[in-house]
Parts: sequence; structure tokens; C-alpha cells
Amino acid sequence: IKEDNKQVFETTIEELQPYDLAQLYVNFPVSDRNKYLSYLSLDQLAKLIQALTNKEQLEVLKALSVEKTSQVLERMDNDDLVSLLSSLEPDKIKKLLAGLKQEASDMIQNLMKYPPETAGRIMNNQFVWIYKSYTVREAVDKLKHFAELAEYLNYLYVIDDRKRLVGVVSYRDLLLADLFEKIEDIMKTRVVHVDAWMDQEKVAQLIQRYEFVTMPVVKEDQTLLGVVTVDDIIDVVYQEANEDIEKLSASGKAIDFTTKPLVAASRRLTWLILLLFIGIVSGSIIASFEETLDQVVALAFFMPMIAGMTGNTGTQSLAVVVRGLTTNDLGWKQVIKLIIRELWVGIIIGVACGILIFIIALIWQGSATLGFVIGISLLCTLIIGTLAGTIIPLILYRLNIDPAVASGPLITTINDILSLLIYFGIATLFISKLM
Amino acid sequence: IKEDNKQVFETTIEELQPYDLAQLYVNFPVSDRNKYLSYLSLDQLAKLIQALTNKEQLEVLKALSVEKTSQVLERMDNDDLVSLLSSLEPDKIKKLLAGLKQEASDMIQNLMKYPPETAGRIMNNQFVWIYKSYTVREAVDKLKHFAELAEYLNYLYVIDDRKRLVGVVSYRDLLLADLFEKIEDIMKTRVVHVDAWMDQEKVAQLIQRYEFVTMPVVKEDQTLLGVVTVDDIIDVVYQEANEDIEKLSASGKAIDFTTKPLVAASRRLTWLILLLFIGIVSGSIIASFEETLDQVVALAFFMPMIAGMTGNTGTQSLAVVVRGLTTNDLGWKQVIKLIIRELWVGIIIGVACGILIFIIALIWQGSATLGFVIGISLLCTLIIGTLAGTIIPLILYRLNIDPAVASGPLITTINDILSLLIYFGIATLFISKLM
Repeated sequence: IKEDNKQVFETTIEELQPYDLAQLYVNFPVSDRNKYLSYLSLDQLAKLIQALTNKEQLEVLKALSVEKTSQVLERMDNDDLVSLLSSLEPDKIKKLLAGLKQEASDMIQNLMKYPPETAGRIMNNQFVWIYKSYTVREAVDKLKHFAELAEYLNYLYVIDDRKRLVGVVSYRDLLLADLFEKIEDIMKTRVVHVDAWMDQEKVAQLIQRYEFVTMPVVKEDQTLLGVVTVDDIIDVVYQEANEDIEKLSASGKAIDFTTKPLVAASRRLTWLILLLFIGIVSGSIIASFEETLDQVVALAFFMPMIAGMTGNTGTQSLAVVVRGLTTNDLGWKQVIKLIIRELWVGIIIGVACGILIFIIALIWQGSATLGFVIGISLLCTLIIGTLAGTIIPLILYRLNIDPAVASGPLITTINDILSLLIYFGIATLFISKLM
Repeated sequence: IKEDNKQVFETTIEELQPYDLAQLYVNFPVSDRNKYLSYLSLDQLAKLIQALTNKEQLEVLKALSVEKTSQVLERMDNDDLVSLLSSLEPDKIKKLLAGLKQEASDMIQNLMKYPPETAGRIMNNQFVWIYKSYTVREAVDKLKHFAELAEYLNYLYVIDDRKRLVGVVSYRDLLLADLFEKIEDIMKTRVVHVDAWMDQEKVAQLIQRYEFVTMPVVKEDQTLLGVVTVDDIIDVVYQEANEDIEKLSASGKAIDFTTKPLVAASRRLTWLILLLFIGIVSGSIIASFEETLDQVVALAFFMPMIAGMTGNTGTQSLAVVVRGLTTNDLGWKQVIKLIIRELWVGIIIGVACGILIFIIALIWQGSATLGFVIGISLLCTLIIGTLAGTIIPLILYRLNIDPAVASGPLITTINDILSLLIYFGIATLFISKLM
């Protein structure tokens, strides 16, 4: 396609979406990429950069001249720019910001004040505001003037003379209203909005519940700061789901298909080494029951099954709790209710599996006592495993501690230890009957 | 608030969002709910129903008269109506559809032809289309006329006289164009669209990549059928993330905070009983190595650690693969690349943990041979566990089999068996040196 014919190329790419521009860039051989970049307009470059991964963004920026970089950065959406800058070192940020116009640079620095994963960090200024004293005609004129900001726009946000958010007017309201009506007479005054410090997960919940395309963000004094758009929220939902899965699998932060083996291994090793030491604790529990085990080796046959089942039921409970917390807020009352529910689940599961394993052990090993010991052990460990998988993440949640600490393998390993203690404890009680 | 004063109540709720209407309903005591329903207008009832959970929806429908039900159903968005109907039995559906106007009922039945979780099932008709032969003025007139459909609208989709999708015009293009220009002269002809049979997860990927608010859905012959809106996509993303977590934790389908204990327990038991039998297989492996175990009881101390670590590394790999597949499409070439990456991860993790456990075993049990056996075993099991966690879901994915079969605990349990075979196999080889 790209036979040095700039003219043809430009008409081909004119209608391309940012994602397509980015795919083209990624699929060109490295040697052709700079030529490709030189063919793009400043607006197209800005779009391209927004659709690339962080690593590729830095590559593109390196290839551009200092002057061109500033011009491209100024054309980027400010939320994308903030997330690009967040990945750089402080002095690199300063250098890039220095190239921007004072106004733009100030605004970016203001946004970067908000901590990552808050509404303030992901909001942008792609919206149109109007004063409540405007007439409908003035509002429509302003809308026309800022039409390029209107891509994600279904609403105009209305502010008073102190820039406080006081209402909202939909595009439909404008169409149906008389041109000389006052905005304050047709606006809706009940505006769902969020605080700039709100956690992005909460913002995602609200946008999902209310099915909004944009959500206005305000400061403590109700001053309108920006909007969070639904496209950013989709990214947030993906990101939060990935974090939940990282918690459940202890697979380590941010490993994707392109992560290098050494990096992926070292991220995963942190957890594995911790779990290895906890595994040694299990080992020393078994060692302390060496005498029991020595006398009835058959106890060892059921060890992995009991530990495994306890781990599995704990993981199941954990998954239900972690997912539930992403879409629900729980008070203490609901927490208690949930724990009692899971207690019942544990009892039902424990009784069912306990009876089943009693029958299996009886047939296989021909000993009712052994079957009884194993059945009772499984009943107890399943109840306790279910409760541990429920209570540990709930307590962390209620105490506002990051529940990432309660990862799946950690709960599994805690359940391993508990189940071995219970199993060998019960077996030792019955040791004289077992021999 | 609700002191039998209908007037006051109506002005209070007039500006409420659907989600707020639903919250009010849920929080009223059961005795007041019917009165609340009788105060709502048909439009408000439709909005309320859309924001309720399935169980609550049926409750509301039961409380309404047959005639009112039809009127309310006709006011619902058709995608929400389809998802409500999907949960009912066929003759109940027929009865409800019979109350609707012929036109509405036909349309709903057309939508229900598409299988669940496809674009056709989640699309709706909340969009405005125009013929390419329209002038800008005609388009604007049509837009004004259908303004109530325009809430989610940033684009008008352009069709030819055979109803095929041929272009798209943004609201901004309309604003900036001359009123007498032809639509076909200002429209963009490159329209990203999806087929009605496309999986909803793929649609979500496309909407995320292109940052669209609506995505047009077409039939095989390019006829425009409807649009998928971004608010439905957020629900899809949540739903798909939950499915991934169900897979990883084998926690059973659709258990939330309100599921009854018996229901939750029976959904979870399916998996647990299967895993119990696989656990018995582990047990019989240990039983077949009874002689080895009897001679060196210390081998039992390290058994849970080795099985646990192999399970953990398998779960980590599984999580990386399952999450990666939600945002990436993989060809065979990338599959091979990923497997080789994970092989390296397994080797690095195996060497690191193997050396560590060798040192621990040497100090604890004072035997270099035992340390060596355990270290080598851990090295082998970690490599194999990592590969199993990667390869099993990838093969299922490439063969288009539902990867739900490769749930986390299943992989953990398979890894348990593999690790015990390797561990006792190596230990038996060295048994003369160990004693």
C-alpha cells in the first residue's frame, strides 16, 4: 500500500478510526514506522497515540521532534495525556509540560494532583457548559461553536455565576424548547454527579446503574471540574475485573501476553515464595503428628483430598464475596446476613460430602472408624473453610484494608493448615480405635 | 414521605432516574409497594421495571393489570424487554406478547431468534436512521421528530433504498453542514459495524477499542437491524468478568448475595463432588506408593507443599490466559509463543523454588539426599504445573470448546495428581539413598 505515494495514502487513512491508525502503526515493520508517522497530520498523530499501549506511545514520542511533540500533546484528550504522563519520571514530565502552552500545562498539573484511580484522574474537559442565565438560542450557539467537543455529548451542564453545577439540559430538551426560553426554566435541577476524589470503581457503579454516557465531576464546593465519559469507564471495569482475578489467583500485577518471561516470573515469584513458606508450616504440622501418621499410614491417602476440598470451598466463597463487592455496598447488617448464609452453605456442603466420603472410605479401606474420622473431619473442615473464605475478605473490606491481601491461594493455604490441624487432631483422638 | 398525598409525591419523583425509582421500590415495605406502583405513570413504570432485577420485575408485573402490563411493556426498551422475556416459560411469553400491538410483538419475536449473548440479543431500536438521498434539513427534521430516541445518539446511520447501512453522519457534521447539502455528500462511508450473530464479548471488545457509544448491527446482507449501546456493553463486561471468575473458582453459576443457602450450596456441590472423586484418585496414588511412604515418613511432610505450589502456579497461568483471551484474539503462532513464554516462566520459578526448598529441607531434616529429591521434584512439578495451566485452556479455546471446563480448581486438582506422581516417582527412584 505504501509505495512512497503520500497523496494516495492520505486519502486512504483520512476516514480511519484511532484504533485502526494504531493497528496500522503496530503492523508496519519498524523501518517503515517513522515514514508512516511523518505522513500523519497532528490530529491523526494525537489520535494514534491515544490508541497505543504505553510502551508504543513512548516509542512514537521519541520519533517526533520536540516542537511536534508539544503540538501533538496539546491535541490529545487531557485524560489520555494524564495517563501517559503518569508513567514517566518527574523530570521527563516537567520537560514535556514545559513545551505546552501555559494554560494547558496548568490544567494537566491540576489533574495530576488527584491520586490514581479517582474520578479526578480519569475525567476530561470534553464537555460543554452553559450559564443558567443563557437563553436556548445562546446555548445552541455555544454548542455549535464547541461542536468538536460534542462527540460524547448528550447533555449540556448548567453552572451558576460561581461555576457551581446547578442543572443539566439534554440535547432533546433544547430541540423541543422555544429559542427564547431561559435555560434555568427548562433545565433539570437534580443532577447525579460525583466528587473528584471518588474511587473510580464507585464511579463505574454509578454510571452502570444510571446508564449515563457522561458523569459530571465536581469539587467540594460544587464547582464543575470535568466529566468522566463512558469509554473510560469500560476501561475501568476491565481493569477492576483484572484486579479481582489477580487477587483470586495471586497471579501478580499486570502480566499480559507480551510480558517478558523473567518479568512475569519475578512478579509471580513474590507470591509463590510466601506460599512456599506457608506450605512448610503445613509440613511441620504433619511432622508433629508423625506418630499418628506412622501408626495409620492410610490417613495419608485422604490428606490431599481433605486439604484440597477445604481450599476449593474457600476459593468459591471468596469468589462470591469479591465479585459481589464490586457491584454492592454492604453494611454490617448485610455482612452478618451473608456470613450466616455461607455458614449454612458450609453445613449443607459439609454434610453431603462428609456422608459421601464416609461411604467411599468404608468400601475402600474396609474400616467404619476410619470412614467416620474422615467424614467428620471433612464436615468440620468444609464449614470452617467456607467461613474463612467469606469472613477474611469481608473483615478486610469493612476495615477498609485492601482486600488484595486475601488472595485466593493465600486463603487456600490458610485452609490447608486449618484442615490438616482438624484432620490430624480428630484422627489422634480416635487413634486407639483406628489401629 | 408517602402520606397518601399523591400530588406531592408525583412532583417529588418526577425528576428521578430509573435507578432511583427502583431503589425507592425496593426500600418500601412490601405493603406499600402496590400503592407506590399505582402512583407511577406508564413511562415511569417502564423505567422502573428496566432498573429492577429479574425477580423484582416479575413481582411488579404480577401486581399490574393485564391491560396495564401491555402498555408498560410497549414502553420498555426492546433489549430490556427481550431479556425480561427470556427468563419466562414459552407460554407465559406468548401470553404477554399477545397483549402487545402486532408490530411490537413481531419485532420482539424477531429479536428472540438470536441466541443469548449475541449482538442480536442485546441490540435495540433506540436510534435514528436516514436515507442517503435526504438533505441535511430533512435529516434534522427527522432527528427532531424522533428526539426521544436520541438520548444515546451521537450519530445518524445512513441507509440506501434497500435498507443497507451505507454511511454515518455525526451530529457535529450536521451542525456544521449547509441545510441543503445532500447527506450522501457529507456522510462517512467507512462504518464500523457488527453482525447480529457476533458474540457479545467480541462486540464489547470492538466498542472498547473504538470508544463508540453505539455500534450498528447488520444482517448478512448489510441491512441495518439495530444498535448496541454502550450501557448494555458495561453490563456485558461485568457479566463476562463474572464468568471468568466462576471459571477460575468453580464457584458455580450465578451465586450472588441474595441467593438462598440451599440453592447456593447445590450449585457449588456439583463441582465439589467431582473434585472429591478426583481427590480420591490422588489418594490412591499415595496408596500405591505406600511402601515408599512407610519407609520415609518425612516425605509426607513435603507432600502438601509440593501439591499446593503446583496448584498455585497452575492457577496463576490460568488467570493470565483467561484474562488475556477476553481482550486478545490469538492465532496458532501467538499460542505457541505464549506456551514457550510460560515454559520459561515455569523453569525460572522452578529453579528458584527448587533451590530454596533444597536449603530448607537440608536444614530441617538434615539430609542432602532428601533435599535433592524434594528440590528436583518441585522443579519438575512447577514446570509441568505452569504448562498445564497454560495449555489446557488454550487448547480448549483453539478448539472452540467452552473453556469453562478448565476451571481453576479442576486445574489445581489435575496438578495435584501430576505432582504426587512426579514426587513419589522421584522419591522411589532414590529410596535406597533416602533410608
